[in-house]
Amino acid sequence: MGCGAALPASKRNPTAQILESNGRFFLIDCGEGTQSRLRENKLSFEKITDIFISHMHGDHYLGLPGLISSMQLLGRKKRLNLYGPPDLWEVLKLQFRVSKTTITFDFIFHPVESEMLLFEDKKITVSSIKLNHRITCFGFIFKEKPKSRRINGPVVKDLKVPHYLMEGLRNGDDFETSEGDLYANDCLTFSPKKSYSYAFCSDNRIKDSLIEKLEGVSHIYHEATFLDSEKERAKNTYHTTVKEACELAQKVNPELLILGHFSARYEDLKALTTEATAHFDNVVMAEDGKVINF
Amino acid sequence: MGCGAALPASKRNPTAQILESNGRFFLIDCGEGTQSRLRENKLSFEKITDIFISHMHGDHYLGLPGLISSMQLLGRKKRLNLYGPPDLWEVLKLQFRVSKTTITFDFIFHPVESEMLLFEDKKITVSSIKLNHRITCFGFIFKEKPKSRRINGPVVKDLKVPHYLMEGLRNGDDFETSEGDLYANDCLTFSPKKSYSYAFCSDNRIKDSLIEKLEGVSHIYHEATFLDSEKERAKNTYHTTVKEACELAQKVNPELLILGHFSARYEDLKALTTEATAHFDNVVMAEDGKVINF
Repeated sequence: MGCGAALPASKRNPTAQILESNGRFFLIDCGEGTQSRLRENKLSFEKITDIFISHMHGDHYLGLPGLISSMQLLGRKKRLNLYGPPDLWEVLKLQFRVSKTTITFDFIFHPVESEMLLFEDKKITVSSIKLNHRITCFGFIFKEKPKSRRINGPVVKDLKVPHYLMEGLRNGDDFETSEGDLYANDCLTFSPKKSYSYAFCSDNRIKDSLIEKLEGVSHIYHEATFLDSEKERAKNTYHTTVKEACELAQKVNPELLILGHFSARYEDLKALTTEATAHFDNVVMAEDGKVINF
Repeated sequence: MGCGAALPASKRNPTAQILESNGRFFLIDCGEGTQSRLRENKLSFEKITDIFISHMHGDHYLGLPGLISSMQLLGRKKRLNLYGPPDLWEVLKLQFRVSKTTITFDFIFHPVESEMLLFEDKKITVSSIKLNHRITCFGFIFKEKPKSRRINGPVVKDLKVPHYLMEGLRNGDDFETSEGDLYANDCLTFSPKKSYSYAFCSDNRIKDSLIEKLEGVSHIYHEATFLDSEKERAKNTYHTTVKEACELAQKVNPELLILGHFSARYEDLKALTTEATAHFDNVVMAEDGKVINF
């Protein structure tokens, strides 16, 4: 929804992303104007089940009170989970109190104060990872769990494998016929579909300890506020340059590195793109409204 | 900058207006996204000297913390005055504290808790007027002071009126020549230019007492959230219909009535415009980005 930094830029809104995974819509950060961006992109507020806020800089959360108020005005009934800094809850409570806003849907706040498992269902987990910024900031890793093996239909049909054993086959069981013939699982099933993962890292001054945390993650979003020519500024403001984000990716080697949070000083993405592709092959620049499928 | 109501609409942003008067730029209300709207309309943040916030509903103030933070990031040095509900200051203080934002320019908060004179310079005054809404809400009246009479150049030159008497002529003095001939002021000057005034009324369920407060105001902005077909809803939510706002104008008779704060249920302004022109002649519908000169 937004790939800009703190100052408004003509074509970039502040940080907000929608991650859709297995039917759930996760909103990650919620800069000012996110509710308008969601509408522009025809994303129903109702679909959002969980919201994750990385830190309390305005360009990452100022769109939240308006979005929640709109959900209330639109008559939301569905539960909404909010994960973020404890201070976020204090700000929202004060704003709702002074505007006499009563939230009547199930709105649950989950404070994020350490690296921990935040969410788990049958298919995915979401965990927080500590980042290194001027104020406390957490990133989030979304991981699909290992998927089941896929039944080889024709083989299983020929062998007349009873239906009640299918779940076992998906989990790796072998199959023994009534005549005592043993069929190994890999004759009966295909390997599972790949499990993807997504790490959201913003805002962050990269530390070596991050490499280990991102190990095995297939898709990494990392902020890249500045060009390397501004690396002193990046260091002083606890941000990252394009080159530095690519160097991290060289070590972690994800399938795709997505860069964003570009400073308003860069009118277009040309120089940023040139620096990125010079230092990592599988890199893409975030743009407002861009959809990345995996 | 925005003529929409609480829920985001495709072409309407929440309330924010810039009033330029005698070189000062007043920002009135500051809904979410106002800093982007200002940028789109090429209005420099630096020019804004005073901000007036009517009440603590999100669609009237949620753009403020982001705008102030951006002013700070842009290195503002100039004094900024903020007039609004005491709760606004509490919200801002909390937001700045948790984001570790330090405002280094001169940022003065003036609580608005009653009908009072908020601002006065040589040319204009700004006063608050109590409105009638679900939470405490104040409107604002901007008034140009009576202007000086304008010197009739050729006449004054012929009579050789000394320069030091000009200010007196502008203020209505007559002129006596050294021969004792008396010239009445209206032979030497033209009548002053008209003094305009602007009332900002949003959000509001109209009470009769408002008529007196708006007496003599040349330009009135009033919210008109609903069509008259939704007048029960307007009543219950402490809002106003287009027809009701026009009926107020019939009694006050301003040169121009400006309507805004249209509910997101109205995709375009057709029906609203039809209802407005049926009930008041000098009426104009606000639109995002529209400029009205007077």
